[in-house]
Amino acid sequence: MIAKTVGIIGSSDEDPELNDIAEEMGRLIALAGYSVVNGGREGVMEAASRGAAGVNPRPESSRIIGILPGLKKSEGNQYLDYAISTGIGWARNQCVILSSDIVVAVGGGAGTLSEIAYAWAYNKPVLAFEGVQGWSAELAGKKIDTKRTDKIISVSTPKEAIEIINEIFENM
Amino acid sequence: MIAKTVGIIGSSDEDPELNDIAEEMGRLIALAGYSVVNGGREGVMEAASRGAAGVNPRPESSRIIGILPGLKKSEGNQYLDYAISTGIGWARNQCVILSSDIVVAVGGGAGTLSEIAYAWAYNKPVLAFEGVQGWSAELAGKKIDTKRTDKIISVSTPKEAIEIINEIFENM
Amino acid sequence: MIAKTVGIIGSSDEDPELNDIAEEMGRLIALAGYSVVNGGREGVMEAASRGAAGVNPRPESSRIIGILPGLKKSEGNQYLDYAISTGIGWARNQCVILSSDIVVAVGGGAGTLSEIAYAWAYNKPVLAFEGVQGWSAELAGKKIDTKRTDKIISVSTPKEAIEIINEIFENM
Amino acid sequence: MIAKTVGIIGSSDEDPELNDIAEEMGRLIALAGYSVVNGGREGVMEAASRGAAGVNPRPESSRIIGILPGLKKSEGNQYLDYAISTGIGWARNQCVILSSDIVVAVGGGAGTLSEIAYAWAYNKPVLAFEGVQGWSAELAGKKIDTKRTDKIISVSTPKEAIEIINEIFENM
Repeated sequence: MIAKTVGIIGSSDEDPELNDIAEEMGRLIALAGYSVVNGGREGVMEAASRGAAGVNPRPESSRIIGILPGLKKSEGNQYLDYAISTGIGWARNQCVILSSDIVVAVGGGAGTLSEIAYAWAYNKPVLAFEGVQGWSAELAGKKIDTKRTDKIISVSTPKEAIEIINEIFENM
Repeated sequence: MIAKTVGIIGSSDEDPELNDIAEEMGRLIALAGYSVVNGGREGVMEAASRGAAGVNPRPESSRIIGILPGLKKSEGNQYLDYAISTGIGWARNQCVILSSDIVVAVGGGAGTLSEIAYAWAYNKPVLAFEGVQGWSAELAGKKIDTKRTDKIISVSTPKEAIEIINEIFENM
Repeated sequence: MIAKTVGIIGSSDEDPELNDIAEEMGRLIALAGYSVVNGGREGVMEAASRGAAGVNPRPESSRIIGILPGLKKSEGNQYLDYAISTGIGWARNQCVILSSDIVVAVGGGAGTLSEIAYAWAYNKPVLAFEGVQGWSAELAGKKIDTKRTDKIISVSTPKEAIEIINEIFENM
Repeated sequence: MIAKTVGIIGSSDEDPELNDIAEEMGRLIALAGYSVVNGGREGVMEAASRGAAGVNPRPESSRIIGILPGLKKSEGNQYLDYAISTGIGWARNQCVILSSDIVVAVGGGAGTLSEIAYAWAYNKPVLAFEGVQGWSAELAGKKIDTKRTDKIISVSTPKEAIEIINEIFENM
């Protein structure tokens, strides 16, 4: 059966507060038995990967998949189970979103903003952390455009986020 | 010599106010001898194309290039001189931005937001119309993240925009 | 640790002879503990997936990853563990190749030919089945161009192929 | 009206014989009023561009469009009128093919082979030069797979090729 996936998106910069959230988010996603999809690099992506990788024993259905911009699998962070090398640069942001059933944004700059925009355009449920630096907080609770009737779901803790994620999967 | 290009980005929806701005913007860009790059479809993209196409005589250096998401050149609007069919869906937004020397946003929803994000990430000068519906007004005069020292340049008329565009090209 | 991957490429058409080879190839790759990467669709892709999925117990390091052309994970065949939806059409053939450490071609038409070409261009070791219909047999034992000093490795059985694959991984 | 386009594909290596063919091919395409699409780089791509650029006066409908793999328009050869920067690496080969109404192959290595494969898969008429080094001669007069009823059209001179191209456009 094709694994259920949660995309965790955010900056490749190292921000301790955002990394802590991402790591705990990754841990809870793995505990719940979902796989983590991300861009495979540093910062929030690596922290989310580390959180999921640290769950022991990890449910067999929970793996960590990094979808990389470049040509080399070795570009991926050390916590990935699978590295998808796309070779299409930041256009890979489209692939990260399309490969995620649900998307969670943790902070983020321009790259993350493009991913939130893709997630909205491709009709993915989007959760966004409020009360932090970056685009997730700017857009939490808002609509990107009028094409959808729902909003970006504002969350303030990983625990709150995983409960919403569980609920969305139950209703899928 | 490779043509100087201005990307005009905005929604495929038909909004008379935004279309008027885009059409006049296209006209001024063509008069100035630059080529127009856009996503090749309807709404702001078509209006900008129409504006440029209506300049008569058009400078030889000014053509209209639509970079399309799908497989068929016939997907392009009727004012295009050249249709680039990418077959990569909305990942083509990256190609629109990379093929533009300068980017002008007119309103816009999720797709335009992803393009503004790419433009910022790829270090393109970005002009955005204020005082209208959509993402251009939301982001006019702001920064997307802290990676750049400049801001998205807020403009309120096509005339103001073309003067800034001329100045940027002169200093390139 | 990022999983070792073998890409199995071939047609989406259903050819019993090619499917048998692909299924056995998938089985041997899974038994050896490598993960299978493919285009996620029918024919050789599905047969290879089925072969790997049938190994019981499967080594934890061996999963089946389909890299899909379209927008939906549900486009993938039923044996995939992970579905990567790229949304970039057959340009995803580049991603299949870049995400594979070693590539094995089983028959194949135009799509497979593009993948063999990418595999050669991106310096991936390529094994190709001889004595079958399609491009793998045409190119087995040959060079695609003079940029590489090696050749496409001709194989006639999955058992022969897996021994070569093991050897290549040992020397990586 | 969207310009009629002929894609000229071949290696970025400098081979005098192939470059001569490509240059003459580019010249005849420009004289006939079609636009040239290519990968925008060196070798056959540059020679075809040079041939078209040298036509004086050039029909207004004939321009030279390079579809580049990287991030920078400046990556294009000096004869391009328009540079499309895709940022998707050799996956741009799909875009070159989809943006061409008819494809002409002149020699070629692995990259060209992937383009011929895409051209076949996407149902584009393909002409290929026989009697030269590289993939165009290997495939001239052959079928890539059984999905199409026609063959790759073997040509031996640019003059022969342009007559066939004219005929194909007349019947489109």
